[in-house]
Amino acid sequence: MKKSFLFLVFLSATHVLCAQASLQLNSPDGQLSLRIDNQQTLTYSLAHQGKLLVQPSRLGFSFSKPKLTLSEFEIIESQEQEVDQSWSPLYGEKSSIRDHYRELSLFLRTKTQPAVEVVVTFRLFNDGLGFRYTFPVQKNLNYFVIEEELTAFKFGADHLAFWIPGDYDTNEFLYQSTRLSEINALQANFQELDISVKSPAGDRVIQTPLQLVTDQGYYLHLHEAALGNYPVMQLELDKADFSLQAHLVPDAVGNKAYLQTGSSTPWRSIIVSTTPEGILASDLILNLNDPAPSGDYSWITPQRFIGVWWEMHVGKGSWDLASRKHAANTDNVKKYIDFAANYGIQGVLVEGWNQGWEDWFGNWKEEVFDFVSPYPDYNLDELTAYAQSKKVRLIMHHETAGSVTNYERRLDQALDKMVLHGMNTVKTGYVGKIIPRGEHHDGQWMNRHYLHVGMKAAEKKIMVVSHESSRPTGLHRTYPNLMASEAARGNEFNNAPTFGLTPEHETILAFTRLKGGPLDYTPGFFDFKLNRFDASRKTQVNTTLAKQVALFVVFYSPIQMLGDLPENLEKFPELLRFILGIPLDWKESHYLDAAPGDQVIVARKSKDSSTWYVAGISDEQAREVQLDFSFLEKGRQFRAQLIKDAEGAHYDSNPTAIETLDWKLGPEDKLRIQMAPGGGFVVKIEEIR
Amino acid sequence: MKKSFLFLVFLSATHVLCAQASLQLNSPDGQLSLRIDNQQTLTYSLAHQGKLLVQPSRLGFSFSKPKLTLSEFEIIESQEQEVDQSWSPLYGEKSSIRDHYRELSLFLRTKTQPAVEVVVTFRLFNDGLGFRYTFPVQKNLNYFVIEEELTAFKFGADHLAFWIPGDYDTNEFLYQSTRLSEINALQANFQELDISVKSPAGDRVIQTPLQLVTDQGYYLHLHEAALGNYPVMQLELDKADFSLQAHLVPDAVGNKAYLQTGSSTPWRSIIVSTTPEGILASDLILNLNDPAPSGDYSWITPQRFIGVWWEMHVGKGSWDLASRKHAANTDNVKKYIDFAANYGIQGVLVEGWNQGWEDWFGNWKEEVFDFVSPYPDYNLDELTAYAQSKKVRLIMHHETAGSVTNYERRLDQALDKMVLHGMNTVKTGYVGKIIPRGEHHDGQWMNRHYLHVGMKAAEKKIMVVSHESSRPTGLHRTYPNLMASEAARGNEFNNAPTFGLTPEHETILAFTRLKGGPLDYTPGFFDFKLNRFDASRKTQVNTTLAKQVALFVVFYSPIQMLGDLPENLEKFPELLRFILGIPLDWKESHYLDAAPGDQVIVARKSKDSSTWYVAGISDEQAREVQLDFSFLEKGRQFRAQLIKDAEGAHYDSNPTAIETLDWKLGPEDKLRIQMAPGGGFVVKIEEIR
Repeated sequence: MKKSFLFLVFLSATHVLCAQASLQLNSPDGQLSLRIDNQQTLTYSLAHQGKLLVQPSRLGFSFSKPKLTLSEFEIIESQEQEVDQSWSPLYGEKSSIRDHYRELSLFLRTKTQPAVEVVVTFRLFNDGLGFRYTFPVQKNLNYFVIEEELTAFKFGADHLAFWIPGDYDTNEFLYQSTRLSEINALQANFQELDISVKSPAGDRVIQTPLQLVTDQGYYLHLHEAALGNYPVMQLELDKADFSLQAHLVPDAVGNKAYLQTGSSTPWRSIIVSTTPEGILASDLILNLNDPAPSGDYSWITPQRFIGVWWEMHVGKGSWDLASRKHAANTDNVKKYIDFAANYGIQGVLVEGWNQGWEDWFGNWKEEVFDFVSPYPDYNLDELTAYAQSKKVRLIMHHETAGSVTNYERRLDQALDKMVLHGMNTVKTGYVGKIIPRGEHHDGQWMNRHYLHVGMKAAEKKIMVVSHESSRPTGLHRTYPNLMASEAARGNEFNNAPTFGLTPEHETILAFTRLKGGPLDYTPGFFDFKLNRFDASRKTQVNTTLAKQVALFVVFYSPIQMLGDLPENLEKFPELLRFILGIPLDWKESHYLDAAPGDQVIVARKSKDSSTWYVAGISDEQAREVQLDFSFLEKGRQFRAQLIKDAEGAHYDSNPTAIETLDWKLGPEDKLRIQMAPGGGFVVKIEEIR
Repeated sequence: MKKSFLFLVFLSATHVLCAQASLQLNSPDGQLSLRIDNQQTLTYSLAHQGKLLVQPSRLGFSFSKPKLTLSEFEIIESQEQEVDQSWSPLYGEKSSIRDHYRELSLFLRTKTQPAVEVVVTFRLFNDGLGFRYTFPVQKNLNYFVIEEELTAFKFGADHLAFWIPGDYDTNEFLYQSTRLSEINALQANFQELDISVKSPAGDRVIQTPLQLVTDQGYYLHLHEAALGNYPVMQLELDKADFSLQAHLVPDAVGNKAYLQTGSSTPWRSIIVSTTPEGILASDLILNLNDPAPSGDYSWITPQRFIGVWWEMHVGKGSWDLASRKHAANTDNVKKYIDFAANYGIQGVLVEGWNQGWEDWFGNWKEEVFDFVSPYPDYNLDELTAYAQSKKVRLIMHHETAGSVTNYERRLDQALDKMVLHGMNTVKTGYVGKIIPRGEHHDGQWMNRHYLHVGMKAAEKKIMVVSHESSRPTGLHRTYPNLMASEAARGNEFNNAPTFGLTPEHETILAFTRLKGGPLDYTPGFFDFKLNRFDASRKTQVNTTLAKQVALFVVFYSPIQMLGDLPENLEKFPELLRFILGIPLDWKESHYLDAAPGDQVIVARKSKDSSTWYVAGISDEQAREVQLDFSFLEKGRQFRAQLIKDAEGAHYDSNPTAIETLDWKLGPEDKLRIQMAPGGGFVVKIEEIR
């Protein structure tokens, strides 16, 4: 996270403007232009090479306390600057990120009395726009309650959208690929029977990250950045003009956010690209997040782990002791530790280690778990010593069941217990309706909670992976111990009885959920029919084996759980060792070919060596990939190792047909690779010295 | 809390009853009779000597989950027993309490399917009735959500009522004395301008404890006992038949209570007496509470303290540092410690010691106080050492501002800090709208919170006095470190600009709020016009000085803060020493004469000696009291010391006119004492040995 250089130009210190002014700001490369109009209301619009992508769209707020509408403003002053700097993330897809934008700050004052001051800051990058509202400390306003944010994104055309339905409590939906005009969010919500807690937000409300494709071939991506003390922004569609209006997740009494002046909203982000790969390559959201405060982050270490977890999903074991097949028992966990040690896997997550699983879900029960009391058949001291002797770490599991007041009361003791037992990573979970009752997973109170946990954990040098939390917005730049989250329909949904996962799902996730931050998707399923322990199950993993391997390269995360059981992983020991050799931190990443719902091909270079990985995933179609290795350094020799779908491989009928090839490779070479339906591949390219 | 004897008769082990049965249970003395009828719905009624006091009144529930109404039952079985036992409270108005009742348990099953089992347990004492619902563990029901409790109290006559309006967040109202037909709760609520947070419950909703007086001269008292995991019961009046229906305080989403089978509701209590003194003497509510678990309670010690508190109320000082008159500074607190040490006062409460008072109220702000960070001018270490050297204890103040999630997160550290600094008593406060937002001071979630704090504090041997909590229901029997609470319009309301306190207020409190448990009323005001530091104030204390002294005897509490400033208390050093000699724990108490709204006269005997105190308070009327000392042991000699209103004393025009008399007294003596308007008296009677 060193700031390598800063190039900052004050284009103009201050403009003092008349009330009717219109203003324009161009991106550093001049291709994107932002226009501000202030007629009756204040609007912004965005064009690329003169083509209007976002039509004039509203900015502002309605407050419930004080009762105010902020939509008619005088522009008191505007400031512009250009910033060009680079920074190095602690971990990520690349080791250096360029942050280059022109910024326009509008100092606004509402026309109604008492006048309220707001600053809107626009940052126009070559690949899109970010903007946020700041409420400066001022005479007429201190605390205020937001009834709704009036920000809109007006497209005026019926774009293709990759969307999930709006919901205040979950983002675990399958994606829909439809025109905006075809969005029926409630139907999409209601048909999902395998999500435990849902609170549909309305028939026109959808979630971000939202990937749009225009008929002119533009890829537009809507999301937000740096969501901390604020609710999640979902979007309400008006089919009359194809505009999307911010729809903030409410709290228990229907308010949206409680703020005090001296604060800012999250950034609203619009990534713009003429290619799908440009969306995937964009660092706009990370750039809009604040750097981490300076400090010692050496304790944050990318890692892979396995989990006493999937065996409960497939019915081999159970979380609860009363079931008589309690998986988290000392002997069983020792086997996981042995397995991890044998393969050099850093950690073993143990779910179901603690008392309470007999009666934890579905009753809005407040005192569920205490986070410190193991089941009697789980000898934590013995396992701690055993894991340490094998140089493996136990990974803690804090399932809250949504009872967050209970968790917060006990958090200090829970984290202290981890430290006492040498654990440095916790997986948190929020499966259930939230307590405080009436609050939602995606509301302001919960977003503050996720950060509270992150900061408490950081005090004790603990890394956090969260499940069922709100989807990420790049905050891991600022709080790097928030390593990853699920916040999507993860690989575990392969076992969901109604829909499971579609082969295209991952190709859309790359464009949507992944843009916010690392995803704990738990790839690494080596066994595909999920009826081994329960013959009645029809569920299966809808990828090929090669695609499971490819996901470790395609989906970036600094912390990854291999999903499958040790006994299944051991069926393909060479593949497993191959996966464990894939870096968790990269120097460069290049998206070679991609389309949401179709495929994603990416080339990444290790941070620590000159080794490259090129990997791809496909949807339900077989696809041929043409690889060009001209990115390799000329005059050098490389060894390539390819893992791909074998002839006849198919996600449904023949998922494990896999082929491995080794050969010598140079920058001048080209390669055609066939991906099977639901398939994928990885090429590892090592320099021969 | 020793159980001295237990006399238990099983009157009949089991009745198996037909569905249409009616049942009767008589009190041990045969005067009260309870009748159960089970026609269409199940009802109970209560009569005294054949006179119907509570007409047939409904029992039952509506559940919102599962969606069920529980009002039509089969009576599966009934059991009766008689219990006669005595127990000794840790502290209280008497050293031994007789608990003598006949109990009828009805085992009910709902007629609708799926059938739900409920047990209603009635305990009929000579002085009234308690009943509660128990939900046994059963096949068809586990978790359930209460939409409303259907319990009613039907009087069928327009009784005189001493009531305060229903409100989910406050009980700090002045009492109204009207017929039931004249109740307009919203008007009574709205006219109160000095209560910071109100949530009126409806125009016919009033609170308990509720004192009723019938035209036949019966005194009926409605309240509840052992309120733990449940919301406060308020009462909704139907003027058509003068029935009162349970109205439970809702949570953020409108539900009333979340319960699991294997639990019981609080007890609903009806104290019945033909005299007002009988209401005051009743131990029914305490008897309905569970005994404390056995253990070491030696750390619970009745005490008196003074507070850096009133000087902020009257404008001499302030809680916040920015005011530049910060009262909780090291030098000032040392003066309080000196004063306490000089008079043998055990503790000094310090409000405003911690950072955050510049911006703590009114904005539903979550992170208000951290409960551990003193202001820079408050040297906690130095004061801790200073207080210890003077044998005085600092008393901690935890004002939550209603932000309870914030308090619970920090509670462990806050209590640990107290232990570190030798503090064993905390005053908690809840001035503000509750966070979790949408929850109320009197809802189930908060009632659980108050107990959570009590139990956490008990783990660290800390005594708790709470302000702005829900009104007590005798739980201090079970949790004896919950020493006292305010939960009423306390003496501090003398400084409220709109209404203040009326002279009759305390005479009603004795019948209402005090029946639930000890009240931290903060008597001991020696200065009556409250404009000394702010000439614009019109507020004043509407009692005489003698009444302030009398309140220390009349209002029982094991922990008492003397309200006034040291410099005011020092104006009457003899009175102050007299007050500090009044026991905080009694062997016997006898209410000699009382009427709500008029007067209360009580005689109490010290637990540790043969000393008696007889004290009285009056309303705005001058009253003559006739005292008969025949309760004194014959053949012995006593010295009496009387503190009374002097000639011409008056709460408004001449509050400090006070007179002290000493003389010898015997059991044969009688005495007439004049109480001034708003006045009072105390006689201390010591045996001459």
